Amino acid sequence: MTPDLDELARRVRLPETDLAKLARERLAGLAKPVGALGRLEELAEWLTAAQGTWPPHLDNVRVVVFAGDHGIAKAGVSAYPAEITALMVRTFVSGGAAVNVLARQVGASVRVADLAVDADLGDVPPEVIRHKVRRASGRIDVENALTLDEAEAAFTAGMTIADEEVDAGADLVIPGDMGIGNTTPSAVLTTVLTNKDVASVVGRGTGIDDDTWMRKAAAVRDAARRARPLTGDLIALLAAVAGADIAAMTGFIAQAAARRTPVLLDGVVSAAAALVAQRITYRVGRWCLAGHRSPEPAHDAALGRLGLTPIVDFGMRLGEGTGALLAVPVLQAATAISNEMATLAEVTGDLETGQV
Amino acid sequence: MTPDLDELARRVRLPETDLAKLARERLAGLAKPVGALGRLEELAEWLTAAQGTWPPHLDNVRVVVFAGDHGIAKAGVSAYPAEITALMVRTFVSGGAAVNVLARQVGASVRVADLAVDADLGDVPPEVIRHKVRRASGRIDVENALTLDEAEAAFTAGMTIADEEVDAGADLVIPGDMGIGNTTPSAVLTTVLTNKDVASVVGRGTGIDDDTWMRKAAAVRDAARRARPLTGDLIALLAAVAGADIAAMTGFIAQAAARRTPVLLDGVVSAAAALVAQRITYRVGRWCLAGHRSPEPAHDAALGRLGLTPIVDFGMRLGEGTGALLAVPVLQAATAISNEMATLAEVTGDLETGQV
Repeated sequence: MTPDLDELARRVRLPETDLAKLARERLAGLAKPVGALGRLEELAEWLTAAQGTWPPHLDNVRVVVFAGDHGIAKAGVSAYPAEITALMVRTFVSGGAAVNVLARQVGASVRVADLAVDADLGDVPPEVIRHKVRRASGRIDVENALTLDEAEAAFTAGMTIADEEVDAGADLVIPGDMGIGNTTPSAVLTTVLTNKDVASVVGRGTGIDDDTWMRKAAAVRDAARRARPLTGDLIALLAAVAGADIAAMTGFIAQAAARRTPVLLDGVVSAAAALVAQRITYRVGRWCLAGHRSPEPAHDAALGRLGLTPIVDFGMRLGEGTGALLAVPVLQAATAISNEMATLAEVTGDLETGQV
Repeated sequence: MTPDLDELARRVRLPETDLAKLARERLAGLAKPVGALGRLEELAEWLTAAQGTWPPHLDNVRVVVFAGDHGIAKAGVSAYPAEITALMVRTFVSGGAAVNVLARQVGASVRVADLAVDADLGDVPPEVIRHKVRRASGRIDVENALTLDEAEAAFTAGMTIADEEVDAGADLVIPGDMGIGNTTPSAVLTTVLTNKDVASVVGRGTGIDDDTWMRKAAAVRDAARRARPLTGDLIALLAAVAGADIAAMTGFIAQAAARRTPVLLDGVVSAAAALVAQRITYRVGRWCLAGHRSPEPAHDAALGRLGLTPIVDFGMRLGEGTGALLAVPVLQAATAISNEMATLAEVTGDLETGQV
């Protein structure tokens, strides 16, 4: 079960930049001024390079919500009780959560993976709990989130889930998150991997008050102290301060990149996982897009390090994959333009024959 | 045919703010932290107040592309020849333009109205040319764009088109534009109605070079001198410096507001028309949303005066309604959330009965 990160790094290649050039030429020939569709054209080029085909396509978008509880919630860092995590997993299964609604809007599928929810979810479909590693991760300000074996199992589960989604035909995958307290380990990973001050990466999460923010900042500070010596051993880092959900998300992002499948990041949790995956090889980041900008301050820090510019900015701070799903219509528009627009030559045929 | 602007102003009422409060309460009860969906929630509230019903709905989005040529193109202010306008009208009819592609993506209809294209379009469906006022508008740096009678006819045509679209069931209308040279009259209206310097509202349009920009700035300056004494008589202002397409768009926006129908503005041309319509009564602006942010500098100036914040920002500068169409999925997401999400009470029923 031990993932070989060096071998994984070797399998992540770069997108085909020659094809981006072809896409640019084709887009320049459409019935519009060159570049007039702005970022839509950049995204069409990007998708072409990632998919290795012109025109790009986007028929099969798949969200995977990585769910897990975090022992750090016991330190009083969240506005909500940990019981909400299990309730929301059931809501994902029944289809009434925001991620379900927004996925239906864009024709995306939603899969839920319980990695470490602090409940025995016997009432959900077995595939939801197949990769469960434990009930809740450890309290990261004073102890490890996971054992090394658990971290490896979670990371490997994420790789397996990525393989399953790609094998099922995914054109693009979205790693979503659900877990009360999960912005705390995300802030820890972000401060450690971007060298930003603790205070600058601790946010309001689901809407915490000042006292809660101070407890959260202290927890991030203490966990970051424990994490800093471990940045050379990514599995040890994930075991120390991430939790099984984030460890799985890291494996998922890296393996999707290895499988040449674009990853549309959501908020601060998926960005933190991408920061770890980027340490496996910088090429992982070349397969990622930032779906949206979250108001969580760690998000800007992480996206800056990843070199990604968010597609939309609606002040969303829900997680689940919801922010990324708002960017999917933009990518669908980019592919539609590439596939369906008339060319300038077709339109001006009349001009040359004097029929105006 | 003379439009009575005072009477039109009286017919434009305010959205129902009581219903916005109801929407806010309902959104606060959904299975997510309060406000966690950010701007989606604000837009859901706005639509509820405009439509006067909870939950909001968005099943019938209609784009009207107002097409017209501008005599000022002869002053060398554009990167493209005027012949392109007629060619693009034919492309809209055949369905291969960017606006057609993006409208199909979101299930919106596209209607084209030739108000002043400099061609006799005998080969397009008769409804496209039914409201034609003349071939091209006058060269606004030295002469009026339209006679007063033509300006009244164009404004009234826009009102008629709004009525037809609303009567056909429009939940939301998008005024699109097509016309080589049309960012020049838009810049004139913007400098005159916002008091911003000429140089600060003249942009690159479809992608002009520095020499062309200087000719355009001189044309805007000269036309603005002609326009400033006329701001107390909006029909005279439209006749002097707008053109039939923009005059029609102004009537269209004002009448849509009178008919309690939200208007999703596109780029700098529709924003300029909205600035004029806002002079009929400030209440017109309360029925408008800004779909996107255009790189044209006049757009920021106009949106500032209108008090609108763009929904998306992709550096798009094509017109046709394309920028606004990228905001439609966001509004559709806001309505879907309002209609389909589980409530917190539904989700936490289990919590209270201790089933976790």
